[in-house]
Amino acid sequence: MAPLRSSVELSSRTVRIRRWPAVGGPKSAQDEIACEEPLELRVDTRSVAVIMRTPGHDEELAAGFLVSEGLIRQRDQIADLRLNCRNRAGNVLDVFLRPDVTVDFGRLTRHVFAASSCGLCGKASIQAVRSQFPRIRQRFQISAPVLNGLSAKMAAAQATFSRTGGLHAAAIFTGAGELVALREDVGRHNAVDKLLGRALLDGQLPLAGRLLLVSGRTSFEILQKALAGGLAVVAAVGAPSSLAVEFARANGQTLVGFLRDGRFNVYAGASRIGG
Amino acid sequence: MAPLRSSVELSSRTVRIRRWPAVGGPKSAQDEIACEEPLELRVDTRSVAVIMRTPGHDEELAAGFLVSEGLIRQRDQIADLRLNCRNRAGNVLDVFLRPDVTVDFGRLTRHVFAASSCGLCGKASIQAVRSQFPRIRQRFQISAPVLNGLSAKMAAAQATFSRTGGLHAAAIFTGAGELVALREDVGRHNAVDKLLGRALLDGQLPLAGRLLLVSGRTSFEILQKALAGGLAVVAAVGAPSSLAVEFARANGQTLVGFLRDGRFNVYAGASRIGG
Repeated sequence: MAPLRSSVELSSRTVRIRRWPAVGGPKSAQDEIACEEPLELRVDTRSVAVIMRTPGHDEELAAGFLVSEGLIRQRDQIADLRLNCRNRAGNVLDVFLRPDVTVDFGRLTRHVFAASSCGLCGKASIQAVRSQFPRIRQRFQISAPVLNGLSAKMAAAQATFSRTGGLHAAAIFTGAGELVALREDVGRHNAVDKLLGRALLDGQLPLAGRLLLVSGRTSFEILQKALAGGLAVVAAVGAPSSLAVEFARANGQTLVGFLRDGRFNVYAGASRIGG
Repeated sequence: MAPLRSSVELSSRTVRIRRWPAVGGPKSAQDEIACEEPLELRVDTRSVAVIMRTPGHDEELAAGFLVSEGLIRQRDQIADLRLNCRNRAGNVLDVFLRPDVTVDFGRLTRHVFAASSCGLCGKASIQAVRSQFPRIRQRFQISAPVLNGLSAKMAAAQATFSRTGGLHAAAIFTGAGELVALREDVGRHNAVDKLLGRALLDGQLPLAGRLLLVSGRTSFEILQKALAGGLAVVAAVGAPSSLAVEFARANGQTLVGFLRDGRFNVYAGASRIGG
């Protein structure tokens, strides 16, 4: 497998802007902004997706995308994973799967789970995912004080956000509140896919005894990715959507929202949270 | 065309949760959450997309999606637009185009602009869009005091957010700071598509002399949608991505970020902002 590229210099960029402060007139200034570039993902030479992402950890993003889509579950299903050398911008990534891994290319789209034939509704979308990933049955426990400390830990670890204010973050924690990994991206789904990809490449899937924390809001897709990664607990600084709540309840996941300022709400699986 | 459904009761839902306050022990409570459901969009009976969205203004979302994808530019290109009565959940929407409107179904995907054949990079993605939508040449002006007042006006008009904390908002304003329309959705792209769809259905495209304000961050796709709608000025409460800045500069758009607390940054087209 190709070595991972250094991503520090790729995640942000400096531009000249006009700054209008609260006091005083406008001034020309330098500003650091989060980088966004397309990544084309090819599986066995076939183009399957173009993802707008923050460059860096691209191998993880590709691997995590395939895990989220239910295509692979173990590292050894990947024969090779590398940047396509013909694209000098570093925006094309090739994945080669082992010959015994069968790929349904028609399924390989972000919209596939929702396109159930049994009458389209949120419930049908949830059922379509359930047929592919097992329900979570972990007894994993986390305490309220540990939970309350996670948002500050994630913020402290967010290198690029502090400079650009422009990146979503996702992080994996242990039940004791230790940070395992953190990824940032202009796309919040990408940040989660990068974490799943890292876990897959390290042979650590499913992520039992681990918690996923996201900086933004939780939706159907975030919960679906967490299920694909075997994560029992999903916490968010922001609010959940109705389908995120229904999804978590249907799949045995714990869903925490508004985790900030020493408080939080538990929308599903409250028994995993202790005092 | 079918009448627009009332969306007030569809945009949020009440669930029972466990609340852990900053002071005192956990309590069972009621919480209002933003609604998320799939919407399948069919063009001339062919399924082209499944969009996870907040129900309500679905006709606008469908019409705006088609505008964003560069398929239609005028209302009279749509022969009919209505909910499919066979789907009782109200999650399937049929669009029938006039016979003289040709549809390239292969292009009808959110990723199409990025999949340029001329060497994949951000610049190529921007060029692919430019070949489809004209560059903005409006002399539209807005003053800094008017700009500074817009975030508060949008927040005041956000009905569902104040209850759920879970929806992205997008709004159209005049150069004098008058609110023209506001839409909310779990998906930030959807909120913009709903505004474009409303404008199309009202025969108001392109939106000359209008400003788009979004509650979150700006990325390639948000700027691309603004260009499809003919919007010269895009402002955001959050940060822009690098590709959003490059896109705005390449297409003659004004891009404002961090519009809050009486201050803002101008990333492109600063000449449209006056003191």
